[in-house]
Amino acid sequence: MKIVTRISELSHDVGTSIGLVPTMGGFHKGHLQLMKTAKEECDLVVASLFVNPTQFGEGEDFERYPRNLERDASLAEEVGVDVLFAPSPEEVYPRLGSVIHVPVVSKLWEGSHRPGHFEGVATVVCKLLNMVGPDVAYFGLKDLQQCLVVKRMVEDLNMPLTISLQPTVREEDGLAMSSRNAYLTHEERLLAPSVYRNLSECKQKLQVPDLTHEQAEGILHHAKTSLEDDGFRVDYFELIELETTKAVRNLSMQCALIAAARLGKTRLIDNVLL
Amino acid sequence: MKIVTRISELSHDVGTSIGLVPTMGGFHKGHLQLMKTAKEECDLVVASLFVNPTQFGEGEDFERYPRNLERDASLAEEVGVDVLFAPSPEEVYPRLGSVIHVPVVSKLWEGSHRPGHFEGVATVVCKLLNMVGPDVAYFGLKDLQQCLVVKRMVEDLNMPLTISLQPTVREEDGLAMSSRNAYLTHEERLLAPSVYRNLSECKQKLQVPDLTHEQAEGILHHAKTSLEDDGFRVDYFELIELETTKAVRNLSMQCALIAAARLGKTRLIDNVLL
Repeated sequence: MKIVTRISELSHDVGTSIGLVPTMGGFHKGHLQLMKTAKEECDLVVASLFVNPTQFGEGEDFERYPRNLERDASLAEEVGVDVLFAPSPEEVYPRLGSVIHVPVVSKLWEGSHRPGHFEGVATVVCKLLNMVGPDVAYFGLKDLQQCLVVKRMVEDLNMPLTISLQPTVREEDGLAMSSRNAYLTHEERLLAPSVYRNLSECKQKLQVPDLTHEQAEGILHHAKTSLEDDGFRVDYFELIELETTKAVRNLSMQCALIAAARLGKTRLIDNVLL
Repeated sequence: MKIVTRISELSHDVGTSIGLVPTMGGFHKGHLQLMKTAKEECDLVVASLFVNPTQFGEGEDFERYPRNLERDASLAEEVGVDVLFAPSPEEVYPRLGSVIHVPVVSKLWEGSHRPGHFEGVATVVCKLLNMVGPDVAYFGLKDLQQCLVVKRMVEDLNMPLTISLQPTVREEDGLAMSSRNAYLTHEERLLAPSVYRNLSECKQKLQVPDLTHEQAEGILHHAKTSLEDDGFRVDYFELIELETTKAVRNLSMQCALIAAARLGKTRLIDNVLL
């Protein structure tokens, strides 16, 4: 595996299919599964590792975000990554740069709780896609709204590649794999699977036929309260339609249950598709 | 020459160098020169023809902008264009789309006189570049600030192509070629070269060695007043540095004199590099 830190060292191989897995490092089984899938589907796999400052808000965890290039490089090599692209912030942002605003799907939920977050995400993903020139880029559905934002940006800007969204990888007790799980204390780690458990139970209850608007409302309220009783501060627990991310109370569109909740100093997000 | 209206009909030819000339139609010698240069430098020349609604403000000339596909197609074919890409607004904007904001160079001058103009320009150029996938895209320096905005966007977003900026083509009396010259009455057409004459005279006067800040100020003021005496309403007449587009009073950086002035219902812009 080649480790590359300069944009100019990336080669746009013509005639080779390239798969890109954009990451911020702190590799877990979710990242590694994306890389394995890319390896199965493409001739050449590039994983980017860049903790992108522009997608963190003030007071967020940019400073303490897990960074361990040596460990990450070793894990990436094991699953067959060909190029690990790990640029410095100065390489990616040599000066104040252009910014991409994605409408509709970047507005609510993570967008309103983390102002500017999705402009940072969209912009850095656009840059990474242009730097690497992949045929396919792989993203994990754990960050569902990020997936919707990236997909919409690529479509809106007519970028010539496919965005491949892959299932969330979970711990045995259901907790969604996330680099941020490393922040959890032992006690918090035991509580953390409650997010997925409530999402799953809620999904089951919502799939009963002929549910009324009021019944759906009650089911969502119950799940949120149950998480709060477990000691979470819940940012949102919602049923949304994927097209617009707007809250809905019936399942006529393609929907998801999404949740964001804080446990101590850690903010967990998760979702289930309906 | 092939005329294409659908994005899906564009073929990203691998191994062929592609030159793109993005235009809004109303072809004049300036456009045709860009196409000729592209033809000399690239294997395949694509000219796009799209009157982009998102770069026109309210009350501007979107409706009356010159449209004549048949005439334009015939002119493009004569200079060797291989593909004329003329999509509909619905093809380019099927829904509310992502928007690119380019900082610093899009703020002043045209940016402040035409709010939202450069977001419209940057976004449509990004889309066209992604649709066509050129190795080189050609722009005329007559729209100097547009050139700076496009160049900065391409650099900021790491887009894998070269932006080639080409000299302004002028009428015999010095008037910069522009599709909007068609709006001028016979009388206005006789007055119109005054913009370039004042820019050129001003350039000469500014190149005297050891000019003071106050002398430069006086020279600019004189040129602006002279245009107003000719019946123009002057939006700006300024000496700027290219890096930031900020007004300056000395020539230590790479500079340009830029002007925008209205004659009746027509707004003319022009510039000279120093």
